[in-house]
Amino acid sequence: MWKNETAKRLQVRYPIIQAPMAGGVTSTSLVSAVSNAGCLGMIGAGYMSAEQLQEQIREVKALTENPFGVNLFIPGRYMTTDEKVALSNRLLDPLKKELSVHEKTTNLPTAEKDYDNFANQLKVILDEGVPVCSFTFGIPSEEVIGQLKQANVTVVGTATTVKEAILNEKAGMNVVVVQGSEAGGHRGTFEESSEGSMIGLMSLVPQVVDQVNIPVIAAGGIMDGRGIKASFCLGAQGVQMGTAFLTCEESGANELHKKEILKATEDQTVITKAFSGKAARGIQNDFIETMKAYEDSLPAYPVQNTLTKGIRKAAATQGKPAYMSLWSGQSPRLSKNQSVDELITGIVAQAESI
Amino acid sequence: MWKNETAKRLQVRYPIIQAPMAGGVTSTSLVSAVSNAGCLGMIGAGYMSAEQLQEQIREVKALTENPFGVNLFIPGRYMTTDEKVALSNRLLDPLKKELSVHEKTTNLPTAEKDYDNFANQLKVILDEGVPVCSFTFGIPSEEVIGQLKQANVTVVGTATTVKEAILNEKAGMNVVVVQGSEAGGHRGTFEESSEGSMIGLMSLVPQVVDQVNIPVIAAGGIMDGRGIKASFCLGAQGVQMGTAFLTCEESGANELHKKEILKATEDQTVITKAFSGKAARGIQNDFIETMKAYEDSLPAYPVQNTLTKGIRKAAATQGKPAYMSLWSGQSPRLSKNQSVDELITGIVAQAESI
Repeated sequence: MWKNETAKRLQVRYPIIQAPMAGGVTSTSLVSAVSNAGCLGMIGAGYMSAEQLQEQIREVKALTENPFGVNLFIPGRYMTTDEKVALSNRLLDPLKKELSVHEKTTNLPTAEKDYDNFANQLKVILDEGVPVCSFTFGIPSEEVIGQLKQANVTVVGTATTVKEAILNEKAGMNVVVVQGSEAGGHRGTFEESSEGSMIGLMSLVPQVVDQVNIPVIAAGGIMDGRGIKASFCLGAQGVQMGTAFLTCEESGANELHKKEILKATEDQTVITKAFSGKAARGIQNDFIETMKAYEDSLPAYPVQNTLTKGIRKAAATQGKPAYMSLWSGQSPRLSKNQSVDELITGIVAQAESI
Repeated sequence: MWKNETAKRLQVRYPIIQAPMAGGVTSTSLVSAVSNAGCLGMIGAGYMSAEQLQEQIREVKALTENPFGVNLFIPGRYMTTDEKVALSNRLLDPLKKELSVHEKTTNLPTAEKDYDNFANQLKVILDEGVPVCSFTFGIPSEEVIGQLKQANVTVVGTATTVKEAILNEKAGMNVVVVQGSEAGGHRGTFEESSEGSMIGLMSLVPQVVDQVNIPVIAAGGIMDGRGIKASFCLGAQGVQMGTAFLTCEESGANELHKKEILKATEDQTVITKAFSGKAARGIQNDFIETMKAYEDSLPAYPVQNTLTKGIRKAAATQGKPAYMSLWSGQSPRLSKNQSVDELITGIVAQAESI
């Protein structure tokens, strides 16, 4: 069941992609373990500088000879106002006090800096000969896609609706990851009319497969061989799994984050914009609850993300999950704390047995 | 792939259930055609009087010797206030004027009348020897379940979370339908902590299957053999399909409703409480848009449902989909206008070929 166009293109034994979770989850040990196990490890580089990215790419290369990939966030224009920043700071101040976060957040991101960083990240990917590059929050320019493809980098887009999948195909993406409403972490939505559409994977995959000619990778809520086999039945050529890898021993996720997922139930995740200014799925907690009423008045991504950084970091250090961004998909009951090898061996055998 | 415990229990060739869509969609010709094709036709009796139900059961019996089922809504306590009713009427008045609906809505439902009707519906089911009875919006009393099971009626519950599935099993249900967030029409949610949880089917099915011992039927967004085979891979023993049957030639749905689904895309459905007071998925239109801001201030189901009845009926008669409840799941791109026989023959062959 594993040998298909996508496995061939990604040069992997199993067309199973470890989702490029940003923010330190995709440690070198996670990425290399996934690639060594015959799947595709991915560095979630969205928040990295070019230097950090280059360093991790070299670390990964030292630990695996198999292909791996890097995911980048497409920089975008974003609107924020001093009033929005002030409101956010006013809401965050009591939490900062509670967590003894004293630094003021200065140096807010700007679209200009984001574009510069993106250009530098791309240069690293080309310089280091990374075989796969995926994108979230948009589609890069024709020029960028052309450059990458000319350097034999496989380019992978992200879509949350049929329209977004078609846009990815038209832009020249080799493969498209379709993200169902079940998925944990940030929604990859980038096209205005797709906002809030929240299509479940069971609906999304066949409708996309019927409308595009490039291979489709299913993402969202897939945790084991059952989800993999089901995705193939729907017409996908591979899967991308986040939460299943997040709780693995090798993952760089905070141990508290892992624990919260391991004990969560399927009805405990919610969509929130409170942490970053962009919609994302995580386990309901006090932070989300407190900010809920103001969600639509907060600064846009990535400004809000920067404003909440100190709180998230301090909460993690101090062991307070109530203020951490506990990203998780809708299948936490299927999560396990095990090695990447155990996970992959288990799900491959399970998928083959169905 | 079709011979399993569920097919045996439901006495059908294919464990494919036609969802019991209420409000006239499940015409006698639809129900009997589904049962004649080896699947389970269901009468959506939620809004019917005992007399109407008895009449349709007899009509169906005259057209098929195969088993069929009836779905009932569990009556519940509901809170409404004169203020809420007044607000709703104030919002609906301009629409009534536009549609020339002159009758005042009197005779609002009461919990007492609902309970009486439910008792009378149950009596008909027992008197007529209906082989399968499913329930939405809750779980009937131990006494009712005992009575039905003693009369050899297969009882089928509805769940939207693992917790609700476990409650159904504990109550003695023979089978449980799990409804993913993709599903069209009313959410079957009945347990308070499950409200708003909106679990996608890819996440819901395996997590339920791991926690209950009764057979699980997958519902939500399934339209063809791909969805059926995928559901089986996830651990379901059967599927329930609504939208796929709604657009069939034999369905009693308004022709405009069928047309709107046939031309809709996956991103056009939304969850709204505006039509009935209970969350349901349908194609976005002016009515939903107009009522959106007031959704949480409207009377509860079934009061709001009664208040909007005149408008929905007039809109359908006058060909104005902008004010109709255009229930649809998230896979309208997969809908076809064909006969029930063509639908079932096609999806069975497709599922077998995967």
